[in-house]
This record gives sequence, structure tokens and C-alpha cells, in this order.
Amino acid sequence: MKKIAVILSGCGVYDGAEIHESVFALLAIAELGAEAVCFAPDDFQHHVVNHMTGNEMNEKRNMMVEAARIARGHIQPLQSFNASGVDGLVIPGGFGTAKNLTQWAFSGPDGTIREDVSAAIKAMVQNKKPVVALCMGPVVVAKALESLHIHPELTVGTISEQSPYEIQAISEGIKKTGAIPVMKSVREISIDHASRIISAPCYMMEASLLDVRNNIRQAIEAMMKMLS
Amino acid sequence: MKKIAVILSGCGVYDGAEIHESVFALLAIAELGAEAVCFAPDDFQHHVVNHMTGNEMNEKRNMMVEAARIARGHIQPLQSFNASGVDGLVIPGGFGTAKNLTQWAFSGPDGTIREDVSAAIKAMVQNKKPVVALCMGPVVVAKALESLHIHPELTVGTISEQSPYEIQAISEGIKKTGAIPVMKSVREISIDHASRIISAPCYMMEASLLDVRNNIRQAIEAMMKMLS
Repeated sequence: MKKIAVILSGCGVYDGAEIHESVFALLAIAELGAEAVCFAPDDFQHHVVNHMTGNEMNEKRNMMVEAARIARGHIQPLQSFNASGVDGLVIPGGFGTAKNLTQWAFSGPDGTIREDVSAAIKAMVQNKKPVVALCMGPVVVAKALESLHIHPELTVGTISEQSPYEIQAISEGIKKTGAIPVMKSVREISIDHASRIISAPCYMMEASLLDVRNNIRQAIEAMMKMLS
Repeated sequence: MKKIAVILSGCGVYDGAEIHESVFALLAIAELGAEAVCFAPDDFQHHVVNHMTGNEMNEKRNMMVEAARIARGHIQPLQSFNASGVDGLVIPGGFGTAKNLTQWAFSGPDGTIREDVSAAIKAMVQNKKPVVALCMGPVVVAKALESLHIHPELTVGTISEQSPYEIQAISEGIKKTGAIPVMKSVREISIDHASRIISAPCYMMEASLLDVRNNIRQAIEAMMKMLS
């Protein structure tokens, strides 16, 4: 049975891992006969957002402890991640990718990336193991690979559909890291065969739950095909 | 398009709504062509549990604000619930049902139920609109209908499979409210045609993500059939 690591960045779209994307990733992994293993950095998330009002709350929460809600307690610190123990890696979206795993939300491509996150992605890519980046996940992959001479195609959504994000700016930012941004709708994925990186825009556009579910299923299918 | 209310009790299995069950309920509702409308009580949850250690945390969280993480911000206070505005109702499981919506976790069938929760369920049943109760959801339905002369069959899981819960005690408790507990595996649901209440055990047993996904899909299908 193939083991697929899933890196979570908290629990909730505005300050952590997007919940639907995370659960649909776990679902597709199970449906395709593989086993998911969840990881998260054992550290405080950037901030806590009230998901009704969008306002910041005066609280501190730990990414791994919150992500354990999605993983029903079965989660490991990202520090313990070892690429040799897994066959593939999935990074769901949510602002946690751009606020916790990287600083992209504040400084774009000039923002830093966490060392544990960067190390995990680099180890997978260098060992030719597939990586799936969902929604805002591609900015994390772009930052991790910036120092290597690898220039994967990565989805950023599309400007031809309604989006709550600044797709054009994210696209420019990804270009600055050396990666190649590609515009894709929520019905499409991108497969970069050379680097074995698969990406899917999911909630980068105003998408329905079914669109997101199907987009993730497509991406995980592409990964499992690489592993078969 | 049929509108289906989903009552959430927070965000996370040990102190709120079970996330997988909640997301799979939203998924099945969308797959079957209906629209989900999320509600939660606008009040503090009983407590906050660290989902890695199981220990209580010295924090206060509001059920609706936390449930908004599952609903991506689209959630309404349960006080504003009106049975005439929806066609069906779903109550996902998680300890929030037994700690926040009712006091079942502390006092069994003698524990109270929140007035807003009880009113919503009674209004649905009295208006012959279907209610789906998942996992621990049946104890909420049992408590809500205790004062009416309605004795639905409700699932409690089964003692013939591994369970982290005291299935036998829950079964006795449900009997005490006047409802009829039925033992079902995660591959089965119960349909009480007289009261139009559907129940499914989901994570009452040590079930896989796929089992739970399929169990919920079965239950939502049964509800949509009643509405067709």
C-alpha cells in the first residue's frame, strides 16, 4: 500500500489548511487504495482569524494541534518527516500555506519559507517522488524549489473566472521564483512530468464543493498513476 | 433545488462537530443536487480539547465561530433557524453533539438539550420533514423528541465491531428517552419511515474514511428519496 504524506498548516481556510481540500485529499487517497499520513509543523500559526467576520482574534494556536482536528488526532510533527518513508506528498491549500508554511501572504515571493517545509518538498523532488500542490499550495512548492535549478509548471487559477485572489500577482510572484505559472480552471490540473509535480487550483476561483472535490480527485489520480 | 440545513456543534471530533462527517454530509448534499445551509448555536462550546493529547485546553471557543471553519464562513445562528425555509435537516456527529448540543456526555439521557436545537428538530419532525442523524447525532434527536409521543428507531452503532464508545450504555440511554435503539454496522443505515428520521452510525465504530463517506452518502440518499 502506497503511503502519501499530507502537510497541513492548521485547520480552517483563513488561517490554516482549507478543510474541504484537506478532507477531499484524504478521501481521494483512500479511494485510490493508498494510505494518508498527516504532518504539520509543531509551531504557532501566524494568527487566528474569526471565520465568520474575517477579523483577527487575540489568541495563539499551534498548527499541528489544530490540524489534528482534521486528522482525528493522527498527525506527526513535520520535523519527523522522512521522504524515504513515503511515496508521495500532498499540500492542501488555505491561507495557512501563505501565512504559516511561507510568508507569501505578506511579502509575496520575497517572503521566507519554513525550513521543515522546504526540506520535505526538496527531499521528495530530489528523490523523484511526486508532489501534489492544491489551491495556494503551489506557492509553497515554488518557494521550496527556488534554490534548486528546477522550474516546474504550477497552477495559479485563472483570470477568466471569478476569484477572491489576485491571480495575476500570484502568477508574477511564481515567475519570480523561477517556476512557470499556468492558468487553469477548477476543472483542470497541471502535470509537470519532469519534476513529477502535479497542481490543481481548487478554491483559487469561486468554485463549488463538487468542483473542488473533482479537481482534487483528478490530481490524486495523476499522482497514483505516476506511482503505479 | 432542495435546501438542507446542517447543524454543526463546533469544529473537531473531541469538542465539536466531527469534520469528516460534516464535510461528507455537505458533499453528499451537493452530489444529490441539493443546497446545504449551515447553522450552529451562537454560544460557547463546553470546552476545548487538544486533539493530539486529548487534554482540555484553557481556552474558550464559540461553536458557531469554530463551525464557520467547516462552512468557509457561510453559517447562520441556530436561533434564526426556521423549518419552513428548509426541506431537510442533517446533524453530523462528534462529541459536540453530546457536550454542546446536549449534556449527554456528562449525564446520559438525563442531561438537558439546548432549547434552540430541540426546537429545530421538533419543528422538522412535526412538519414531516426528514431529519438525518449521523454518529452521535441520534442522542440529540432522542432528547429533542423525548417530550413528544414519537418513538423513532435510531442507530447507536453495534457491539459486534470495535468501538471507542460505550455502545450498550448509549443504547440503554436512548431507550430511556422513549426512542428505539437499533444496532447497525457502518455499512448500514436505519430509516424510520413514520417519523421520517434517518440515522447512520459512521464513526461510532472504528471505521475507515471510506466507510464513513459511504455511510453518509447512503443516509443522504435516503433523505433525498423521501423528498423526491
